Amino acid sequence: MFPGLTLLDLVGPQSALAATSDIYLIWKNKNLLVSDNGMVLKPDTTPDECPRDLDVLFVPGGPGQVEVMQDPELLAFLADRGSRAKYVTSVCTGALVLGAAGLLQGYKAGTHWAALSLLQFFGATPVDERVVVDRNRMTGGGVTAGLDFGLMLLKVLQGKRVAKVQELAMQYDPQPPFNVGVPVKAGPDLTEEAVAWIQGYGIDMVGTARAAGADMRRYTSSN
Amino acid sequence: MFPGLTLLDLVGPQSALAATSDIYLIWKNKNLLVSDNGMVLKPDTTPDECPRDLDVLFVPGGPGQVEVMQDPELLAFLADRGSRAKYVTSVCTGALVLGAAGLLQGYKAGTHWAALSLLQFFGATPVDERVVVDRNRMTGGGVTAGLDFGLMLLKVLQGKRVAKVQELAMQYDPQPPFNVGVPVKAGPDLTEEAVAWIQGYGIDMVGTARAAGADMRRYTSSN
Repeated sequence: MFPGLTLLDLVGPQSALAATSDIYLIWKNKNLLVSDNGMVLKPDTTPDECPRDLDVLFVPGGPGQVEVMQDPELLAFLADRGSRAKYVTSVCTGALVLGAAGLLQGYKAGTHWAALSLLQFFGATPVDERVVVDRNRMTGGGVTAGLDFGLMLLKVLQGKRVAKVQELAMQYDPQPPFNVGVPVKAGPDLTEEAVAWIQGYGIDMVGTARAAGADMRRYTSSN
Repeated sequence: MFPGLTLLDLVGPQSALAATSDIYLIWKNKNLLVSDNGMVLKPDTTPDECPRDLDVLFVPGGPGQVEVMQDPELLAFLADRGSRAKYVTSVCTGALVLGAAGLLQGYKAGTHWAALSLLQFFGATPVDERVVVDRNRMTGGGVTAGLDFGLMLLKVLQGKRVAKVQELAMQYDPQPPFNVGVPVKAGPDLTEEAVAWIQGYGIDMVGTARAAGADMRRYTSSN
């Protein structure tokens, strides 16, 4: 986790997985931090405390990720844990953080629809699907895709039966009110407006991704 | 919010509404508290500090709600703010908390599928739908229904265009992996297992709801 994360990117998967998993909420320190929607949260594990071998490495997205993508120590930490994790995963633009750590090179990957083209900077092949699986990489689309992602990961970890019970317990029988959750359904006008809204965060995700992609080699070399 | 809340009940609606709303995260004090899935959170507003008139009163569900349903001061606070709020709302078993505060008497309401029958204790008419609207009451189904609920509430508050852009920005184009998110789709075996899993929290929701329903009149009398 990190300051300015998109909370739902994390809470969707966490909600699907928490009952059957030991979850570490990792950040540089254990100070309170604020999510993109104003929730004050407390990390519980620093990189130094994090177990060496993880079943799953997971990264959410959010406006605050630009700092993570420029932090050599955090990227080295992710590259290290990712090199041994059984599954290397993300939701939304968390894929760009994995990419910056050199963890998506040569893999198919998904991310938020507005960020798909940025995966190229990291040697990944963008796939416009809600959950993309390529070998041990599992990367979800934007924000709410974390629910589909979390249940699919739960199936991989605990079997189909457990994942089905979880889907039912979470009453995951969605009915999107407007049926415009992806650009192809929303059309160009709404899409333009959504992109403008996202850009309102005032962060340079394109420039950050380009720079991080150019820098990527130093994290992959140690894998 | 409260210790032991189901985090996604809150974060779904919050994610839909945060960009266009001032949100108060209300609890008895501002100490850190822990959600049902282990996230450590910080409330930011006590009942004494809460504005007298709210556009929306919202209550999430979760195992910790049994304490809220037995707390006369909190119920009186909810009954008071609910008597003037433009919209009185909940997701999941948060509806039972509204009920305990006397706020659903004579209204149609929704809640988690496993708790629908408990609404009768509060004089509410259970409706097995994902989002139930009756006059200024808007009550959602279980957990993930908070996304549909949040977007529908956003439409009411900010108009359809804003809500559509938000649905697209959240990439809410869900694909439940197993299509078993409600009992009618899951069948009796999975449903029994999910109920057992929910009961594993070890709380007596039926007894709590019955007792709270019997006590309800003292909160409604002051409305």
